[in-house]
Amino acid sequence: MNNFEFKNPTKIIFGKDTIDKIATEIPENAKVLLLYGGGSIKKNGIYDQTKTALAKFETIEFGGIPANPEYSILMDALKVINDENITYLLAVGGGSVIDGTKFLSAAAVYEGDTPWDILTQNIKTEKGMPFGTVLTLPATGSEMNSGAVITRKETQEKLAMGGPGLFPEFSVLDPQVIASIPERQLVNGITDAFTHVLEQYMTYPIGALLQDRFAESILQTLIEVAPKVLKDPTDYNATANFMWSCTMALNGLIQKGVPTDWAVHAMGHELTAMFGIDHARTLAVIAPSHYKFNFKAKKEKLAQYATRVWNITEGSVDDKAYAAIEKTESFFQELGIDTKLSDYTKDYDGTAEKIAKRFTDRGWLGLGEHQNLSPDKVEEIVKMAY
Amino acid sequence: MNNFEFKNPTKIIFGKDTIDKIATEIPENAKVLLLYGGGSIKKNGIYDQTKTALAKFETIEFGGIPANPEYSILMDALKVINDENITYLLAVGGGSVIDGTKFLSAAAVYEGDTPWDILTQNIKTEKGMPFGTVLTLPATGSEMNSGAVITRKETQEKLAMGGPGLFPEFSVLDPQVIASIPERQLVNGITDAFTHVLEQYMTYPIGALLQDRFAESILQTLIEVAPKVLKDPTDYNATANFMWSCTMALNGLIQKGVPTDWAVHAMGHELTAMFGIDHARTLAVIAPSHYKFNFKAKKEKLAQYATRVWNITEGSVDDKAYAAIEKTESFFQELGIDTKLSDYTKDYDGTAEKIAKRFTDRGWLGLGEHQNLSPDKVEEIVKMAY
Repeated sequence: MNNFEFKNPTKIIFGKDTIDKIATEIPENAKVLLLYGGGSIKKNGIYDQTKTALAKFETIEFGGIPANPEYSILMDALKVINDENITYLLAVGGGSVIDGTKFLSAAAVYEGDTPWDILTQNIKTEKGMPFGTVLTLPATGSEMNSGAVITRKETQEKLAMGGPGLFPEFSVLDPQVIASIPERQLVNGITDAFTHVLEQYMTYPIGALLQDRFAESILQTLIEVAPKVLKDPTDYNATANFMWSCTMALNGLIQKGVPTDWAVHAMGHELTAMFGIDHARTLAVIAPSHYKFNFKAKKEKLAQYATRVWNITEGSVDDKAYAAIEKTESFFQELGIDTKLSDYTKDYDGTAEKIAKRFTDRGWLGLGEHQNLSPDKVEEIVKMAY
Repeated sequence: MNNFEFKNPTKIIFGKDTIDKIATEIPENAKVLLLYGGGSIKKNGIYDQTKTALAKFETIEFGGIPANPEYSILMDALKVINDENITYLLAVGGGSVIDGTKFLSAAAVYEGDTPWDILTQNIKTEKGMPFGTVLTLPATGSEMNSGAVITRKETQEKLAMGGPGLFPEFSVLDPQVIASIPERQLVNGITDAFTHVLEQYMTYPIGALLQDRFAESILQTLIEVAPKVLKDPTDYNATANFMWSCTMALNGLIQKGVPTDWAVHAMGHELTAMFGIDHARTLAVIAPSHYKFNFKAKKEKLAQYATRVWNITEGSVDDKAYAAIEKTESFFQELGIDTKLSDYTKDYDGTAEKIAKRFTDRGWLGLGEHQNLSPDKVEEIVKMAY
C-alpha cells in the first residue's frame, strides 16, 4: 500500500425531502448566486424547492450552464459574481453545473491575469469562494470532491482543475430527483460512475485489500441496481443506492494508497471535445480497447475483478481477465450504450492521430498507472476503439 | 435506506515515516500539550520522532493516561491546560489517550459547573480546543471520529460523549508502530474493530446495499490480515490493511443510512467498569450471546454475513445464521480471546442483575436497533455469557 493523505470535509445531506436543509447550511448574511443548467429543474420541482429554501437570502440566478461546462459562459457568470458582490455559490444540477461552479469558486478569488491560467497552468485553489450543491444527476461524484473539468469550445479543449479549497461545503442528495431524469442521462450516470471506479482499481495489485474490496463493492452495487433504476426510477431504494454509489466512486476514498490510471478519461475527453459525444459514452468506447491493449499489465487485477465482481471462477488468469473485459463491454451495451466510435460518427478517420498529437503537444508523454502510455500507444488504443 | 448526514473533516496522514508531518499541521504559534499513556512510546521510538517533529513548538507533556481514560487523571491534565495557557492538544497513543484528549478538548472550552456534566448530561461539543493525534494502536477508530468514552473509578462508570467539534484536525497513521505492540493489544484491536463493524451491520436488512458491502469488506479484510499481523507484526502490508480497516470501521461511514445496534458495547462497558476486563474482550464475551438471544430479529443479516464473509452457502437461513455466530466466536477464540465471563472472573454471580439495574437506573429501557432490548433481556443475555 502506498502512503496517502485523505481529507474530505464536504457535509453530505442524504435522503428524502432534504432540499429545504440548505437554508441552515448557507451563512445568514450570504448573497447567493444560484447556478443551474438547461432549466429542467423548473419542470421537476427542484427549482421551486430550492427557491423556497432560499427565501431568506438575497439571491441572484444564473441558468444555462451546458453539459461540459463552457468557459465563455462561465466568464459571464463570473461577471455577475463580481458586479453583484456575490458571497456564496449554490450549484443546483449535475456534474457540469457543479464543475462550472467550482471553476467560478476558484476564479472569483484568483488574482492572476486571466482565469484560463487556472486550467492551463494547473493552479491549485487553496481557498475558493464558498459553495454548496443540490445534486440533480448522480454520475460524476463532483458533489463530494474538489476537482472539475472545464471545456473551451474556441480551442476544442477540455481541461481539469482542482485544489483543497474546492470541496463543496455541503451537498444535498435527494434520490427522489432521479425519478425525472431521462433514461439517456441515467445510463450515462451509471456508466460514468462505473468507469470512475475502474480507473482507480484496474491497475495492478499493491496489497491494498480494503480499497480493492470497497471498489468492488461499488461495482457490485451499480451492477445490482442499474436494471432496477432503469426499469423504475421511482424505486427509492434502488435510486438511493445508485446515488450513494456514484458519490463514493469519486470522493477520493477508493484511490487512497493505490495506483490510479485515468488514461480512459484522458482519451475520452478528447472524443467529447472533438465530436460532442456524451462524456460517459466516450469512456465506454475507450475502456474495452484500453484494457485489451494493456492486458499484460492489468491481467491480475482484471482476473480478480472477474472473480469477485462477475463471479467468473473458471479458467486461467488470462481467461478470467479476458472474460471480465467482455462482461464490462456487455454491461455497457445492455444499458444501451454503444461501445465503438463508429457508432457515434462516420467522421472518425484520423481521430487517433489527432489525439496522439494533442497529447504530444501538451507534453502528456506517459499516461496510466505506469506512466508509460505514450502518444503512439494512445493512437493504437483509439484505433482499436473505432 | 434511512436519511442521513455525513461529515468527517479529519485529515488522515497514512503511511511509512509520516510522524514528522505533524510539524506542518499544527498552527505556528501553538502552545502544545503532548498527551500520552503509560510510556511505551518512549521505548519504541515514537516519542523521539514526535519530539523531533515538535521542535519548533513550545511543548508541555502530560503522560500517564491509562487504558479506559480516567476522569480524575484527566482533570489533572485540564489543570495543566488552564495553568499553562495551552492552545493545541496532541494525543500520541491508542483509543484511550485519544478519547481522553477529546474529553480535554471539550472540557477546555466548557463553561458549565463541572466537566463531568459533559458526560452525564450528554452535552455535544460544537467546537472544542483543536487537537491532532498520532495513532500508536489501531483499534477504536477514535483517530477519525468525534466520539469518546470516559471512565470514572469513583463511581464505577464508563460514559460516552462527543459532538461535531471533536474530530481530530489530523491523525497520523504509520503502520510501522504496530511492530512494537504486544500481542495482547493487537488481538484486542482486531476484536474491537471487528465488533465495531458488527454493531453497525448486524441488525436487519434495510436495502443499504453499498453500506452492507463496505461493512463486509472491512470484516473480510480483518479476517484475512489478522493471522498475518499476529504472525509477523513487521509485515508492513498486513499491518497497513489492519490499521486502515480499524479506522474505517468507526469513522461514521458504514453506519450512515442504516440502523445500528451498540447493545454489545453498552453491556461490555459495564464488564470493564465492574471487573477491569479489557474493552475488546468484553465485546467478545457479549456478542455471541447477544446474537443468539436476538436470533429471530437478526437472522437475515446473520445469514447474509455467513454467506458473504464466511463463505457459508449451504443450509437454511437459520442454519447459516447460526453457523455465522459460531464462526464469529471461533474467530475470537483463534485470536486467543476468551468468550465467557467465567474465563475472566470467578466472581460473576449477580453481574447480570447488577447491569440490568444500572440500565434501569439510567433510564436505558430499550437498547438495540429496535430499541426494545429492555433491562430484563439484558439480564438474560449477560447470564448467557457467564
